[in-house]
Amino acid sequence: MKRDLTLLFKNIIENDRVALGQAMTLIESQRPEDRKDSVFLLNLCHHHENSDSLSITISGPPGAGKSTLIEALGIKAIAKGFRVGVITIDPTSHISSGSILGDKSRMNQLSVSDSAFIRSSPAGNLLGGIARRSRELMTLLAAAGYDLIFLETVGVGQSEHIAWQLTDGFILVIQPGSGDELQGIKRGITELADIIVVNKSDGTALESANISSVHFRNAIQYLSPQRQNWIPKVLNTSSFTGSGVEELLEVLRLYHQTRMENNQLAKQRSLQNQFWLTWSLGITAHQLLMSHPEVKQKLTNGFMDIEHDSRSIYGTEYEIEQVMQQLISFKI
Amino acid sequence: MKRDLTLLFKNIIENDRVALGQAMTLIESQRPEDRKDSVFLLNLCHHHENSDSLSITISGPPGAGKSTLIEALGIKAIAKGFRVGVITIDPTSHISSGSILGDKSRMNQLSVSDSAFIRSSPAGNLLGGIARRSRELMTLLAAAGYDLIFLETVGVGQSEHIAWQLTDGFILVIQPGSGDELQGIKRGITELADIIVVNKSDGTALESANISSVHFRNAIQYLSPQRQNWIPKVLNTSSFTGSGVEELLEVLRLYHQTRMENNQLAKQRSLQNQFWLTWSLGITAHQLLMSHPEVKQKLTNGFMDIEHDSRSIYGTEYEIEQVMQQLISFKI
Repeated sequence: MKRDLTLLFKNIIENDRVALGQAMTLIESQRPEDRKDSVFLLNLCHHHENSDSLSITISGPPGAGKSTLIEALGIKAIAKGFRVGVITIDPTSHISSGSILGDKSRMNQLSVSDSAFIRSSPAGNLLGGIARRSRELMTLLAAAGYDLIFLETVGVGQSEHIAWQLTDGFILVIQPGSGDELQGIKRGITELADIIVVNKSDGTALESANISSVHFRNAIQYLSPQRQNWIPKVLNTSSFTGSGVEELLEVLRLYHQTRMENNQLAKQRSLQNQFWLTWSLGITAHQLLMSHPEVKQKLTNGFMDIEHDSRSIYGTEYEIEQVMQQLISFKI
Repeated sequence: MKRDLTLLFKNIIENDRVALGQAMTLIESQRPEDRKDSVFLLNLCHHHENSDSLSITISGPPGAGKSTLIEALGIKAIAKGFRVGVITIDPTSHISSGSILGDKSRMNQLSVSDSAFIRSSPAGNLLGGIARRSRELMTLLAAAGYDLIFLETVGVGQSEHIAWQLTDGFILVIQPGSGDELQGIKRGITELADIIVVNKSDGTALESANISSVHFRNAIQYLSPQRQNWIPKVLNTSSFTGSGVEELLEVLRLYHQTRMENNQLAKQRSLQNQFWLTWSLGITAHQLLMSHPEVKQKLTNGFMDIEHDSRSIYGTEYEIEQVMQQLISFKI
């Protein structure tokens, strides 16, 4: 069946939710025959991206309440007339491959709003804390006119650097804790944050939440600012009581405004695109060469050698490395 | 200067620490001309690996006290006559690329023992929570006769799955916390754990540590066991008071014994090697194709197009994808 991609594009920019969902499924399809259509559609959407939209990474350790914060923040934003897109990963157990909880059910209220669009990519597509095609999904949302686009990452560690590179701003969400517990989080990831949110600042956790925010405000002083004219802000929020959420939205608005000055955001987006191109092609390079029939055959042989313990795995690796070099007539 | 690799190998298996350090530097060298020597040495060492050695991943969120636990456990193990190897990452800030704290100074006591060898790989080599050549470093340690080899991971998320695949056992280290805080950690990573350690179980944290361990003991009941005849154990430890560390070593001994039965460990190592071969070659495939002069040239052009905003990034990506396909005369 031939798709009418021009019609699909027209429907997307007219905010037809069904069309947007279909387009996202096409973009995330792993069937080689869908790739050409996908690129055609993305080309159209890329030129129609709303340049006033703001993309924000929501990162932080498991259990910090990232999803509930996105929901609370999203609802406030919608009340102020914004349209909110969310790109997230469907949390799926790695071994059993069974989905534990759909994300839509994690963002009950937001998911029923006409001004919100939540896309949960299957965890099987996970690459470095985001999905293989998260950037492309953001393009679709920006083309459909969404103003505020949240990219929720999975995991803490190296993964958030990719999301950081692909979005306009970075919110680190943590839960209240003592300085000692925060010690590990502080390194690396704090440097990335434009806004640090101490979430779950309610009830009995209030006191330790205040300690946490003082702790981070101190830490920030020792970091060199990553953005022109922006010193990272630390906020206390509670998705449960709603406290601090309005302030967070206001800080986001301020952040957006600051970044729009002097054409900063446009420059940053250029870097985002360069990063994305390298990252995405790197994944393709990996897939292509590893799927080549000659490499696959050698790998199968290598697996048998391992089973029979008949040669050193390092010798096998070296042999296949050389096959790869011959295939592309190039060695590093 | 020509290296005498046979002599280097001889010195390694005679536990010459300087030779071991030199060999590790050779293995981790990114100079293409070192690759052949590196493979030659690895082939020798692979056939000399101590098959009674046990490799254990130490994973867990930042701040859970992984390093101090490794130190406490390592010292106990050495007192019982074991030799302990540690592969870890030198924690380095991603943006500033400056090393904050050497790992040797994080494991003060262990690092001065003649029966311990600690290797900190530079974080620049980090790939999926471990270093590019962590598996190879483990081979060297096993060839040098180390009995207990700890692989400390960086970050929490997807990263620990690679370490899980490459080692004989998996210890998840967490700090005391409420059930709510543990909710996020529970998914996925708990399934991987052979032993869950609630570390920092001391002082005012004792009560919440007990809650945490009950919580995990309950959670484990709902998971299908990953290993034959082994139900994951939950322990409370304190690297500070030393409480629980002796018990943990005993559990590790039991674990080792169980896994040695019915040739289980040998079978698992076969799978480890198959996984490693695919993983390692995948990284090479990525590097090779992305470094190919034609791809690099197209990528440079693509970067300029992005700067001038002269075409869709998706069109550029598709074009380079096709260049890659032509280079290896293959498309997926």
